[in-house]
Amino acid sequence: MLPRLATLVENEDPRGLEALDVLYPLTGKAHVVGVTGPPGAGKSSLVAALLDRIRASGRRAAVLAVDPTSTISGGAVLGDRIRMMEQHADEGVFVRSMASRGRQGGLAWATAGLVHLLDAAGYPLVLVETVGTGQDGTDIASLADTVVVVEAPGLGDGIQAIKSGLLEVGDIVVVNKADQPGADDARRLLRAAFDLAHPTDSRETPILPAVAITGSGVAELLTAIDDHVSWLTESGQLTVRRERAARSEVLAGIRMALDRRLEAGSSHMPELASLISRVARRELSPREAVETLTVMLGPSVNS
Amino acid sequence: MLPRLATLVENEDPRGLEALDVLYPLTGKAHVVGVTGPPGAGKSSLVAALLDRIRASGRRAAVLAVDPTSTISGGAVLGDRIRMMEQHADEGVFVRSMASRGRQGGLAWATAGLVHLLDAAGYPLVLVETVGTGQDGTDIASLADTVVVVEAPGLGDGIQAIKSGLLEVGDIVVVNKADQPGADDARRLLRAAFDLAHPTDSRETPILPAVAITGSGVAELLTAIDDHVSWLTESGQLTVRRERAARSEVLAGIRMALDRRLEAGSSHMPELASLISRVARRELSPREAVETLTVMLGPSVNS
Repeated sequence: MLPRLATLVENEDPRGLEALDVLYPLTGKAHVVGVTGPPGAGKSSLVAALLDRIRASGRRAAVLAVDPTSTISGGAVLGDRIRMMEQHADEGVFVRSMASRGRQGGLAWATAGLVHLLDAAGYPLVLVETVGTGQDGTDIASLADTVVVVEAPGLGDGIQAIKSGLLEVGDIVVVNKADQPGADDARRLLRAAFDLAHPTDSRETPILPAVAITGSGVAELLTAIDDHVSWLTESGQLTVRRERAARSEVLAGIRMALDRRLEAGSSHMPELASLISRVARRELSPREAVETLTVMLGPSVNS
Repeated sequence: MLPRLATLVENEDPRGLEALDVLYPLTGKAHVVGVTGPPGAGKSSLVAALLDRIRASGRRAAVLAVDPTSTISGGAVLGDRIRMMEQHADEGVFVRSMASRGRQGGLAWATAGLVHLLDAAGYPLVLVETVGTGQDGTDIASLADTVVVVEAPGLGDGIQAIKSGLLEVGDIVVVNKADQPGADDARRLLRAAFDLAHPTDSRETPILPAVAITGSGVAELLTAIDDHVSWLTESGQLTVRRERAARSEVLAGIRMALDRRLEAGSSHMPELASLISRVARRELSPREAVETLTVMLGPSVNS
C-alpha cells in the first residue's frame, strides 16, 4: 500500500492528497533526520551505512532520497542508489527516491508530503537525504528534527564548506572519508568555525569522523542522532522545531500555489499577469507590483 | 553617487527603494549576464578575466558578485574578490559584492534591485556572479538575458554537473581550467548531455574551453556572449526573457513579503500564524492551511 500511496502523493494525484489529509493527524511520531551536504561528500553511502546500523539495532526506518535530478540526467544518476535499494527486500526498511525535476520550487512541499506519509505509516525514523543548498535545501532542512551535515576532506578548501551555509543548519556534522588526507584538518576547521559562531550555545555541535564504506564511526553517529532527539525533547526545542517545520511547509505550499497559478497562464490570473507585463515594459516598478499584489493578502506589518 | 545608492538599495532603506522606483523606467538597456556554476569552478577568476577583456574592447561594465556567505564566514571568504576589486580604480568598471546572509529568500529580490540600479546608471554590460543552485540560483539565473555556466574538470565525475541542474539554464557553458587533465572529457560529456536534452533547438549551446588565470579562451567567451544577445534580439527571445525576468522578480518579491510578515511576529498576521500553529498541532493538514490562505489571493486556476 505504501509505495502506491507514495506515488499518488509524489504525483500530486488528488486521491493521494486526500489520503494525506486523512493521515495527517497520525503524524508527528517519527524522528525526522535530514542528511545534507555538498555533492561528493558521500551522503548516499553514509545513509546506507546508517540504515544497516539502525536495522542492526532492531529498529525500522524509512529513507527519502531527494535527488536534485535535472531533466537531462536520465536514469544514470540513480546508479548510486542501487546499493541502498537492495535493502528493499527487508520489510523493516522503506526506501524512496524522489526526483526534483520539473517541480518549480515545489520540492520542499512534495518532500514534506512524503515525510508525513512515512511518519503516518509508523516508521520511527525517517531519513531525508538531500543536497542542501539554496532555498530548497533550507526548506527541506527545516522539515527535519535533526539535521546531519556531511562533509569530506578535499571538497575544496574548507572555506567552501563554510560558504555554503550548510553548517548553520547542522545539529550534527560528519566528516566522512575520515581515512583520507586532510580529514583531521577539516574537523579542526569545522570545530573552530562552530565555536566562533555559537560561543554561548548550551549544546555543542558534535563533529564526528566516519568512513561510510567501512561503517567506521556510524554507530557513534546513530548515538549522536538519538542523543539529539533526547535533547530536543528535554529542552522543549522539539515543539519549536515542529512549529518551524509547519511554518516552512505552509510557506512552501503558498509559494508553489502562486507559481502554479502563474504557470497556468494569464487568462486565469489577469491581474497578476497584467502587472508582470507592465513591469517587463518598465511601466511599473517591481516594488509597486509586489505592493499591489500583497495588499490582497491582508493588512501589512506596518499598517 | 552609485555606491551610496547601492548601499541604500541593498539595505532596503526606503530612500533607496524610492530611488529605484524613480529610476526603473530608465532600465532595460543593459545586457545582463549571469555567471554561475559550482563552488571551485573558478567563477570569480573568470569574471575578472572577462572584465579585463571587456575593458580592453573599450566597453564599460558592472559586476555584482552575489556571495552565498553564511553568517559564520566573516571576511575571509571575500579574499578571492580582492583581485577583482583592484579594478575599482578604473572608472569604466563598477564592482559590488553582495552578501546573502540573513536574506531569508530575499536574495533574488535584492539582486534584481541592484541590477536595475546598475542598468539605470548606464552600464551596457552587467555581470552577475552567483553560485546557482536551488531556488535562489534559479531565480537569479532568470534575471539574466544570458546565463554562462562555469564548470571545471575534477569537480566530481561529470555526473555531478548534470545532477546540479545548472546545465539546463545555461546559454553558454565554459569548461574552465581547460589546461588540467580531464577537461576534454568534461567538454565531450557536456556536449553529449546538451545534444541529448535539446535535439531540436535552433541554437546550439556553445561549450567553450577557458583558462581564466591566463586569459586563454576569454576573448571567445566574450564573442559568444555578444553573439547570444544578437540572437536574443533577432529571434524575439529577448522580449520573452524580459517578461520571464519580471515575473520571477515579482514572484520573489511576493515570497519575501510573505516571509517578512511571518518574521515580524504573529500579532501582525493572526490568521496565518494561527493556521500554522494548528498545522504544527496536527489539527489541520498543510494542504488545508495553504488552501485557506491562497483563497485570499483571489480566484484559483480551477475556479
